[in-house]
Amino acid sequence: MSARAPLGLRSYLFAPANHARRAEKVFAAGADAAILDLEDAVAVAEKAAARPLLVAAMQRPRNARGYARVNGVDSPFWQDDLAVVVGPWLDGVVLPKAESAAQVRSFVAHLEDCERQARLAPGTLDLMLIVETALGVVNVEAIAAASPRIGRIALGGGDYTSDLDLEWTAEEEALAYARARIAHASRAAGIEPPVDTVVIEVRDQARFRRSALNGRRLGFLGKLCIHPDQVAPCHEVFTPGPAEIARARAIVAAFRDAEARGVASIQVDGVFVDYPVVYKAQRVLALAERLAPAVTGDG
Amino acid sequence: MSARAPLGLRSYLFAPANHARRAEKVFAAGADAAILDLEDAVAVAEKAAARPLLVAAMQRPRNARGYARVNGVDSPFWQDDLAVVVGPWLDGVVLPKAESAAQVRSFVAHLEDCERQARLAPGTLDLMLIVETALGVVNVEAIAAASPRIGRIALGGGDYTSDLDLEWTAEEEALAYARARIAHASRAAGIEPPVDTVVIEVRDQARFRRSALNGRRLGFLGKLCIHPDQVAPCHEVFTPGPAEIARARAIVAAFRDAEARGVASIQVDGVFVDYPVVYKAQRVLALAERLAPAVTGDG
Amino acid sequence: MSARAPLGLRSYLFAPANHARRAEKVFAAGADAAILDLEDAVAVAEKAAARPLLVAAMQRPRNARGYARVNGVDSPFWQDDLAVVVGPWLDGVVLPKAESAAQVRSFVAHLEDCERQARLAPGTLDLMLIVETALGVVNVEAIAAASPRIGRIALGGGDYTSDLDLEWTAEEEALAYARARIAHASRAAGIEPPVDTVVIEVRDQARFRRSALNGRRLGFLGKLCIHPDQVAPCHEVFTPGPAEIARARAIVAAFRDAEARGVASIQVDGVFVDYPVVYKAQRVLALAERLAPAVTGDG
Repeated sequence: MSARAPLGLRSYLFAPANHARRAEKVFAAGADAAILDLEDAVAVAEKAAARPLLVAAMQRPRNARGYARVNGVDSPFWQDDLAVVVGPWLDGVVLPKAESAAQVRSFVAHLEDCERQARLAPGTLDLMLIVETALGVVNVEAIAAASPRIGRIALGGGDYTSDLDLEWTAEEEALAYARARIAHASRAAGIEPPVDTVVIEVRDQARFRRSALNGRRLGFLGKLCIHPDQVAPCHEVFTPGPAEIARARAIVAAFRDAEARGVASIQVDGVFVDYPVVYKAQRVLALAERLAPAVTGDG
Repeated sequence: MSARAPLGLRSYLFAPANHARRAEKVFAAGADAAILDLEDAVAVAEKAAARPLLVAAMQRPRNARGYARVNGVDSPFWQDDLAVVVGPWLDGVVLPKAESAAQVRSFVAHLEDCERQARLAPGTLDLMLIVETALGVVNVEAIAAASPRIGRIALGGGDYTSDLDLEWTAEEEALAYARARIAHASRAAGIEPPVDTVVIEVRDQARFRRSALNGRRLGFLGKLCIHPDQVAPCHEVFTPGPAEIARARAIVAAFRDAEARGVASIQVDGVFVDYPVVYKAQRVLALAERLAPAVTGDG
Repeated sequence: MSARAPLGLRSYLFAPANHARRAEKVFAAGADAAILDLEDAVAVAEKAAARPLLVAAMQRPRNARGYARVNGVDSPFWQDDLAVVVGPWLDGVVLPKAESAAQVRSFVAHLEDCERQARLAPGTLDLMLIVETALGVVNVEAIAAASPRIGRIALGGGDYTSDLDLEWTAEEEALAYARARIAHASRAAGIEPPVDTVVIEVRDQARFRRSALNGRRLGFLGKLCIHPDQVAPCHEVFTPGPAEIARARAIVAAFRDAEARGVASIQVDGVFVDYPVVYKAQRVLALAERLAPAVTGDG
């Protein structure tokens, strides 16, 4: 368990694949990853034209990981999407509206065909699923375990709250259940920590920050972003801060000393510390190290 | 998804079937539906006498939909209940303590026998299930998908909190999980939105209103009521208000304009709007239209 | 349902089995039960030596029930643990990290072998499972129903929050989902009410008390304790107080009178009372009676 080391991507910033200026700017916004969208942000008449534009944008020099969000498997577009966009220029694929294990398996089979045709070893591309319907939440344990190709699952709050007529308040009580289901399913299946929902109030950074804290509290690592201004608060929330790092170091050091004396449970500042607390501290330090430039910048 | 149009019943007011004055008054309380009860409110010795009284009450002129709550399938009464009360005078049947798909299916089979004997086409009567035990919640996805006859599922908070020894505070944290399970199961099965729990503090309208807001936030449409005074706050909460309608109209109009320009994601008052947000706005307008007299009365 | 009568243990206080002074003091702390630990609190090199120390501690005169926490079935220790510690000196066994029904069934089979070898009738020892991982929560309904030997399930918050990288705040929002799953699974399987998590802030009694109230609200009865100072607030929260008892008596008495008049639903102080509310009141009184000395002491 202590060995589990999440990749540590904190921000995934969307841009429409067929909007040249935005598809270029998205890589300069400081996000850890950019998602060029072929789905909701692209009108039906534009689907075919958007695919090569996505590839061109990915092929330019860039300093963020590049994902393509293809259309869902209930659409007539996803297979053509994959046929064009899968290639060595891409870091990963995002499948929206994941609703069943069978659906995900058929998507993965087609993805691997496309990887082979692009002369990529199957498994090269990362795969993120977006769960954003009641059916997706109800089936999320099976979805998370459907394929070893699944890298992580994200919650899509816009479709989700619409599908169930939930009220998406600032406190986000209505998202707690879906977050819990997705986090448990991800961990039980041994995939990466889940990625938290977009926030659609694009001018309200306090609300974004609050949502990110909600997600982090419930086991999410990183967030889908739909505006460049959301990247900074996203990184602030999902980067371990100096106090958190100092505390993790103190726990690890005190426990190492105790173990050397044959003791496996101690107190650090009034808190009982045993193996699980130490493992968590070790993961904080591993994440901080992986994000070292950002952390140095913060600290 | 945009086509989904809930029936829009907001209030289901209970009265004991064997209490003549209350069974008459229940139809004059302004509720969208009345439920004449053969179960908990009727003592065992009164069960047989209550059935024809229920039929008589339903046969009188009335201006609310009429439902019969029969006894649960773990009782010796439910088959005789159905045999007497099913007829052209009835709008629907309420089955309490739904706990498994098999149980619901056997209930439906018997209900359809009774419909045939009453010369009603099977499917004439609406069916509401009440989930009100831990077992019912654990099985709710299977229950919701057990039969195409199921119209909607209600949460029964009294039995539920008793079954699990939950504390039913005004904040109702202890109901959040059951509400989420029922809402997801209902939507995943494609049935009507669920109906929220009774509130047993019959003199406390603020508490009722708060509970209704909790239910609405979590995807419920309408509420079980046990006192005529609960109908007005119920309708207030579950009827779209002028501000909500105006906002929905603005979203739909702005998006229609954008779509005409080939754009599928816009901002309206600082909020990102794409298809799911538009679908939700359309449902608000559809509900407002269906409730037109009430809305006009409110606005 | 009214017949359900929980055993009423409120506090389970841990001590390391190989720490002679603490293993003795744990029985004098006033807890309803003591758990001598062979798992996390005992270093690997000490496992073998700890077993006979546990037996010796259990054999001394003591005035609290005595449980042994053995090592998990993913360790090489649990079978030897059982072989040594099972005997007439023990009240029950605690299995940590329960994650699947199959795992629990194989544990129970071995436990019953050990009971037979110790000339105990299979079924003599109580069995508590600790669910403390995402996988355990995902499988908790199957786990609770895996064997009639299961007495109760406890939530282990330290491992659980570490496994999922949850933030364990004072409000404990991140525990709500696991508490709900465990409470529903326990009730649906017909086992005892679940036991709430440890609190690792051992100097912060207000935090412990708040956590106990959270657990009680969500259907838990009793709590795992890791410090003697946690026993008093634990008993305070899980013992029905004078006001609660008086109210339960009033409900039961008023309903008995109503029933005698053929009425099955009444109001008591503005609250609607029918069978489920009465059943709950009866359980409060039954618990108060079982805890009579404590209640008398409190009142």
